[in-house]
Amino acid sequence: MTPESTARISAATLARRLGPEPVDAAGPAYRLLAHRIRSAVLDGRLAVTSGLPSERDLASGLQLSRTTVAAAYTLLRDEGWLDSRRGSGSRLRLPETGGPPRTTGDIGPAGLFGYPGSTGDEIDLSVASLPAPEGTLERIAAAAVADLPAYAAGGGYAPFGLPVLRQAIADHYSAAGLATTAEQILVTNGGQHAFTLALQELSVPGDRVMIECPTYPVALDAIRAARRIPGPIGLPGPGQLEDTSAPWDADLIAATMRQTAPRLAYLIPDFQNPTGALMDGPTRARIVEAAQASNTILLIDESFRDVPFPGHGALPPRMGSFDDGHRVLTLGSLSKSVWGGLRIGWLRGAPAVINRLAATRALGDMSGPVLEQLMAAHFLADPTAALDQQSRRLADGAAVLTAELAAARPEWKVSHPRGGASLWVALPGPFATELARSAHAVGVRIAPGPRFGPDGTMESYLRLPFTQPADKLVSGIRRLSAVADRAAAARLSDVPGWLT
Amino acid sequence: MTPESTARISAATLARRLGPEPVDAAGPAYRLLAHRIRSAVLDGRLAVTSGLPSERDLASGLQLSRTTVAAAYTLLRDEGWLDSRRGSGSRLRLPETGGPPRTTGDIGPAGLFGYPGSTGDEIDLSVASLPAPEGTLERIAAAAVADLPAYAAGGGYAPFGLPVLRQAIADHYSAAGLATTAEQILVTNGGQHAFTLALQELSVPGDRVMIECPTYPVALDAIRAARRIPGPIGLPGPGQLEDTSAPWDADLIAATMRQTAPRLAYLIPDFQNPTGALMDGPTRARIVEAAQASNTILLIDESFRDVPFPGHGALPPRMGSFDDGHRVLTLGSLSKSVWGGLRIGWLRGAPAVINRLAATRALGDMSGPVLEQLMAAHFLADPTAALDQQSRRLADGAAVLTAELAAARPEWKVSHPRGGASLWVALPGPFATELARSAHAVGVRIAPGPRFGPDGTMESYLRLPFTQPADKLVSGIRRLSAVADRAAAARLSDVPGWLT
Repeated sequence: MTPESTARISAATLARRLGPEPVDAAGPAYRLLAHRIRSAVLDGRLAVTSGLPSERDLASGLQLSRTTVAAAYTLLRDEGWLDSRRGSGSRLRLPETGGPPRTTGDIGPAGLFGYPGSTGDEIDLSVASLPAPEGTLERIAAAAVADLPAYAAGGGYAPFGLPVLRQAIADHYSAAGLATTAEQILVTNGGQHAFTLALQELSVPGDRVMIECPTYPVALDAIRAARRIPGPIGLPGPGQLEDTSAPWDADLIAATMRQTAPRLAYLIPDFQNPTGALMDGPTRARIVEAAQASNTILLIDESFRDVPFPGHGALPPRMGSFDDGHRVLTLGSLSKSVWGGLRIGWLRGAPAVINRLAATRALGDMSGPVLEQLMAAHFLADPTAALDQQSRRLADGAAVLTAELAAARPEWKVSHPRGGASLWVALPGPFATELARSAHAVGVRIAPGPRFGPDGTMESYLRLPFTQPADKLVSGIRRLSAVADRAAAARLSDVPGWLT
Repeated sequence: MTPESTARISAATLARRLGPEPVDAAGPAYRLLAHRIRSAVLDGRLAVTSGLPSERDLASGLQLSRTTVAAAYTLLRDEGWLDSRRGSGSRLRLPETGGPPRTTGDIGPAGLFGYPGSTGDEIDLSVASLPAPEGTLERIAAAAVADLPAYAAGGGYAPFGLPVLRQAIADHYSAAGLATTAEQILVTNGGQHAFTLALQELSVPGDRVMIECPTYPVALDAIRAARRIPGPIGLPGPGQLEDTSAPWDADLIAATMRQTAPRLAYLIPDFQNPTGALMDGPTRARIVEAAQASNTILLIDESFRDVPFPGHGALPPRMGSFDDGHRVLTLGSLSKSVWGGLRIGWLRGAPAVINRLAATRALGDMSGPVLEQLMAAHFLADPTAALDQQSRRLADGAAVLTAELAAARPEWKVSHPRGGASLWVALPGPFATELARSAHAVGVRIAPGPRFGPDGTMESYLRLPFTQPADKLVSGIRRLSAVADRAAAARLSDVPGWLT
């Protein structure tokens, strides 16, 4: 059947096929219309290659403005759902999926990041990344561009980071109560860059690296790729512990450090990824003390520390506050709290360690981009409004996702974080990988539990980020819920991992 | 002696101590004045901690405008050469050298990059980096900022590079005659990042990597740090070969590939760094053929290809043009041809290889900065004027440096490149390391020959970049020449390397 073989359908027919407007609809009318059309194609109510009514006819048939219909058609066209040819109107099609992968979700088993929801009707619940706070990028980019001429006459290299940014980051810590000088800061291209530099410079192949289990999967992939040995410390999941905000067992961690003397320990005490848990002060003190005794470097990821949910009280002191022996190396980032497209992260540590890390960094990519660093410096000069905006978005997303899960799947146990970007979900059985497979078939991408640990277990867990807009979260959970029973029944108990 | 113990000197005395204005002076008057004052301190004509005359007195004494004197004082103050206290005037001091290193020149034996000439009177002839072309950064940054809102709503991740930039880079190759699709491009954070990704993904520790000798030292450092084995192919130096533009011995390279089957070969056929040589077409064809036979991947660095000196005829075809078996991986960069602070490089290769490289890249730092990539895309849409400007700067610098060397040290043999950023100089004896040491004492930083090879030899060679302004090149060579005889006499023939 060629595209031309399907007739153009009338506005009245299309209106019937689309059904009534959802009662909980939110967002611009044109996006909603585009969404309804895509959904109708995906579930078979509209044939692919159907010719759509003219904009004028559909506007009249649906009682929408012609502008709205035109914008919806434009959006569908841009997303590859519509072919428009002069004289023959607009015809539905399926977006192409061939060609190069558009996200790293497609490049391998890591598969946990990408442009969320950027094409078609797919809902990406595998990625924990926010849109940029409104107006912020434009503001800091304009300020950075104004600074550029003063830098353009130089060579542009600064492997430690631009002095102005190192100082701004140091001031950010000092203002929060942890006295810091610029010499203690190395600027990196985002948090993952900071992580891999520390891993590379402070350990060698074969070294043991203590991690939480579950942990951030891209860090875990980097540990494996660098031929270090991940040493997992289990964190109890939802339902296993009354207070999910305190799952770290300080005695266990201290004993493990004493017995195995890991070179590095990678911990996320502030809204742990994926559990969202927050480590209390006494546990922090115990762990730093244990690390000092076992000569372990604590690589502490504070990516989400600056965006606790609104109304959250004071956080426990930073891990670095308990350190008097240069055991704590702190990893910070604007890529999680502000925007993933702003590739600015850093490490805070003793100047001697920072010097070694900078030498390694210079061999890897010489230096960071100047304009990006100037943007970050301007951001840190006045971060409050933008961080508040991101905090609200995260809290709102968490509320929507939690409510939707409670309604759709009350038997799933979920974490109740007060920060971070995702829920950690305990399923009633070990079918997470099968659920991810089934979800993919209905246009939802999720990350099953085994992605978050080193040994292919955690088949009863899922991470569900709440960074997508509310309508995507709701649709995503509904689709997921619709295939969950089938996935639970079909589960293969011997599936070892994500891509098998 | 405390700072206050030295009296303020009169304008007349200062004028005498500074001596007459140099006849070949160029640049703004205030910079020249600051330079004369610094020089007078450095060579002892002015005591450190001397109090300077008031701006008004000195303006009158030197017959300069008060604005000029004020600007010179401000510059000296900013550079750390002047202390100003209300009520007690301005007092000379030496800039602090403690604290964090301001360039990677200080972080270790790599020592080959930094903000050239950025403080005090030091002239950095170890770094081959140009200032940004005038007006270009401002233009492309403004255009990029205008594009940002369309990206800010997404997650910001694109580990292969933004589609618009991948396409722009592909078009750049296609327009130059080498048909290329966006799928063949991976965007990186500059050329060194591209190099280390290729090294990491396409070889394993213990593998042999063929390099030219001399070669780009940061690449060599990365090869060593990654525990690969550098396999040098010698390039004859100035004076050893009549035509220094063709030092590659295709027979030798082919035989070495056949015998040692290196995993990778890193070559710089277009204005080789540091020799400036250009490989001819037949040699390129031979090398690609040999690489196909030995299953060696050719990692071809074309960082300087786009900025040959003005009037240069057509270049030989790119190495990739001779390849029909996916043996050539091409490394490109805007950081050398445009500006070091613009951290955009790329790799061009077969899509399957690019996919593997992107997976490795994502583990290292996830993705590149969005604004920086948009800037690069705008640059490549209209690169000609800016590249021409950089070409002229390089050619002018080469002419100045060549003439100055011929006048000051006619017995040194120099290369005669028609592109690239540096001269390769053969000294009349093996005293390069001693010369670098002596040069440092008179405020000139140079990179001696051993930095450019794997085995501590090449003590009779120097690399001298011509990217600094003409006045710095001239002063630098004069200072270097002034200490050369002493260095030659003092040389320790058994000095094994740079930092011993």
